[in-house]
Amino acid sequence: MHREIIAIKTRKREELVDITAKVRELIRSKDIEKGCLVIFVPHTTAGITVNEGADPTVKEDLLYVLRKLIPHRDSEYKHLEGNSDAHIKASLLGSSLTLLIENGDLILGRWQAIFFAEFDGPRQRRIHFSLY
Amino acid sequence: MHREIIAIKTRKREELVDITAKVRELIRSKDIEKGCLVIFVPHTTAGITVNEGADPTVKEDLLYVLRKLIPHRDSEYKHLEGNSDAHIKASLLGSSLTLLIENGDLILGRWQAIFFAEFDGPRQRRIHFSLY
Amino acid sequence: MHREIIAIKTRKREELVDITAKVRELIRSKDIEKGCLVIFVPHTTAGITVNEGADPTVKEDLLYVLRKLIPHRDSEYKHLEGNSDAHIKASLLGSSLTLLIENGDLILGRWQAIFFAEFDGPRQRRIHFSLY
Repeated sequence: MHREIIAIKTRKREELVDITAKVRELIRSKDIEKGCLVIFVPHTTAGITVNEGADPTVKEDLLYVLRKLIPHRDSEYKHLEGNSDAHIKASLLGSSLTLLIENGDLILGRWQAIFFAEFDGPRQRRIHFSLY
Repeated sequence: MHREIIAIKTRKREELVDITAKVRELIRSKDIEKGCLVIFVPHTTAGITVNEGADPTVKEDLLYVLRKLIPHRDSEYKHLEGNSDAHIKASLLGSSLTLLIENGDLILGRWQAIFFAEFDGPRQRRIHFSLY
Repeated sequence: MHREIIAIKTRKREELVDITAKVRELIRSKDIEKGCLVIFVPHTTAGITVNEGADPTVKEDLLYVLRKLIPHRDSEYKHLEGNSDAHIKASLLGSSLTLLIENGDLILGRWQAIFFAEFDGPRQRRIHFSLY
């Protein structure tokens, strides 16, 4: 079981950062022919998701809808740090993801990319990887 | 580690297809007594979820609420293919799921079924399975 | 591969129950240095999520937003048991979660806690754990 941590710096309050190339490079460096990859985000205002990476408007529309459904400000929020929306979005996308490795590479559909989902940036973030 | 791909054909634009029987059959064919099953959907407008399979109105209500929250058409969408809603719903349900195998069968609650969630059909789709 | 089932009793219709201490205790009892933990909820009106455990207002805001987006009553619901909202919330958070174990303990961010998400309580519930 191989472990790795990648650090990334996000640039905006909300941003989907495509980490697919980094993940593929990581898998190749471990020389695993067939296996699983668990990705874990140790933050409560960020998540991880798989979606279309080819057309950047898809991630814009995803952030737009989440923003519309879960507004940044709401007079009913009780949490005083002003980032309740980010916590909620993180739980909706999830903080853990299991992907498959075959022929030494990630199994991903033609249009799929892996996105680190920042909802309360810009920040320095970390992503854990476990390969087995 | 066993791998399998199942092909399914969806019939509508939005549909929850119960794949529980297919998954149970797959597990039995592999003769695994105790282990884990990872299900991965290699599409960006479809997802995977576990919910009630006994009463078909549950899946209708799930699709209804997602449709109400994330409309098919929205003048603010930037993605030009007209399926932004499908991409967003896919990320909300998720594209990967890990289940448990015990006594050669899936651990599932009495009412639980595994659904392939089609949001931009009808299409020919594929589902990846990894058992270990 | 170690397996364990924990029973919990929820107290309200909707409640996020912090199970982090129970999970940590379970991992220590198994004496696993490095590995993975799969958590599986065998219910269709409850889920599992990771979010902030330090400030209890975060979980209140999460339940508030889900309630606002997915009302308990809606004249369009077809399911007659009056808990369609709970089924939908369960699918949005998910019923399965994979976490990482290192140095005999869970990898969790400073503010992260693991929550069993009850959406149709109070009830007696069960949570499955698999460690490997």
